[in-house]
Amino acid sequence: MPRSPLSPYLPPETDPESDLAVAHLLADAARGPALRHFRAPDLAADDKSGGGAYDPVTAADREAETAMRQLLARLRPRDGILGEEHGAAAGASSRRWVLDPIDGTRAYVIGAASWGVLVALEENGAPALGVIDQPYVDERFWGDGARTWHRRGAEGATRALAVSGVRDLARARLCTTFPEVGTPAERAAFEAVRDKARLTRYGLDCMAYALLAAGHVDLVIEAGLKPYDVQALVPVLRGAGATVSGWRGDDAPGAEGRVLAAATPELHRAALALMQAAL
Amino acid sequence: MPRSPLSPYLPPETDPESDLAVAHLLADAARGPALRHFRAPDLAADDKSGGGAYDPVTAADREAETAMRQLLARLRPRDGILGEEHGAAAGASSRRWVLDPIDGTRAYVIGAASWGVLVALEENGAPALGVIDQPYVDERFWGDGARTWHRRGAEGATRALAVSGVRDLARARLCTTFPEVGTPAERAAFEAVRDKARLTRYGLDCMAYALLAAGHVDLVIEAGLKPYDVQALVPVLRGAGATVSGWRGDDAPGAEGRVLAAATPELHRAALALMQAAL
Repeated sequence: MPRSPLSPYLPPETDPESDLAVAHLLADAARGPALRHFRAPDLAADDKSGGGAYDPVTAADREAETAMRQLLARLRPRDGILGEEHGAAAGASSRRWVLDPIDGTRAYVIGAASWGVLVALEENGAPALGVIDQPYVDERFWGDGARTWHRRGAEGATRALAVSGVRDLARARLCTTFPEVGTPAERAAFEAVRDKARLTRYGLDCMAYALLAAGHVDLVIEAGLKPYDVQALVPVLRGAGATVSGWRGDDAPGAEGRVLAAATPELHRAALALMQAAL
Repeated sequence: MPRSPLSPYLPPETDPESDLAVAHLLADAARGPALRHFRAPDLAADDKSGGGAYDPVTAADREAETAMRQLLARLRPRDGILGEEHGAAAGASSRRWVLDPIDGTRAYVIGAASWGVLVALEENGAPALGVIDQPYVDERFWGDGARTWHRRGAEGATRALAVSGVRDLARARLCTTFPEVGTPAERAAFEAVRDKARLTRYGLDCMAYALLAAGHVDLVIEAGLKPYDVQALVPVLRGAGATVSGWRGDDAPGAEGRVLAAATPELHRAALALMQAAL
């Protein structure tokens, strides 16, 4: 079957005018700037924390978002946009594209390949499509809430993803960005789960969620997140069968800046119970 | 210039009979098993901790080391071997190959690409050559204590590496495997430095040292290490200009299982002073 002329990542059976095609093109557009500055000897990082914990932003973040916004102006001029670096632009539709040009800028500035480009499409405020792209490794995860796929490179195979069947905390592989984020109370809630999990890994940014969708990680617990950190993850997670919420269990992922994502409802419930007791 | 027929990573001007050629071939040999099991749905991990903190080992670790040992039996039959999985074998020379088939098995089992294959050649106990290979990303870092190189893929350019010039803790990018390793006292020493550094990232395994050699990270502090975790890193770090020791400053890297590696002597001294005060 001929490859799509639009994006090497678009499955050939997909309508090139579809929202999924636009989402792939947005991720493609971010790759140029993101790769051009990655590990560049002259990469400069500004601190946008205003005196708090170091929160770097680079030319790569700004240029990658600009490239995506220019594409949206051409392909989806009626839709709204929310981007980490260049803010919100109201649209004339019920739809909004949510862009994090480089999720994990702290990883980016040290040359580690756990950062990713995040693209989401919201319909009436709910995330309907999500892409997690890692340009340096050249791999992409995407989902629509019903199914989730992975592909590595233009020559790679597109593969449907499913979460693991792990239900028991004692077998769970847990990822988080703690201790880098969160309040002391949030950290205590996280640690209550960590103390029961088989293995905990730190510092994976959006790749933790991608690996949960792919069945290699069973649980992700995070706090201190913004909407542009979260919206792209949700359709990827749900499409692979994950259970994802805020920390109250029945709230939306990202509520109060918090996410609890689990491979199974049983694991989600077990983690939630420990976190509620500690909060 | 024609590519070496032996290893795509061997610089063409290098003697194919040299120890460096053997080191590249060893890293090449580990790639097959390491990639075959990476993110495999049926990957099984045994716990070799004996009831302590989860310490996984997989078929990939064992098969990759076996492949390297078979190659050494053919190419360097007189040299000794120390490997993480299959132990020590005495040699008839003053030389010993130190192998960690998968450094960062905890990253490996969750599908994160921060693990690496480590190969070192010791002469009279001192590390003379080191290779850090990441097969999934397809990039390799290697050094001989005087120079260090990086290359990505068979088609990539071989590039000499140098550390950053960062001397001031307030500007330093710090990596570590804490809080996953170390005693409470060691953790306190680490945290004394972390509290003064600009940015701290967790969970990078051997890639933290590779990124220090490449100038993107300025400081790495670790404890709980074994000789096979350390020996390959030293020639890579020193070849790029880094200062590396144990935690006493004048001891060998890996002494008491501890490493302190810094981009500059000034930064090494500043970190050491804080750690000594906290230990």
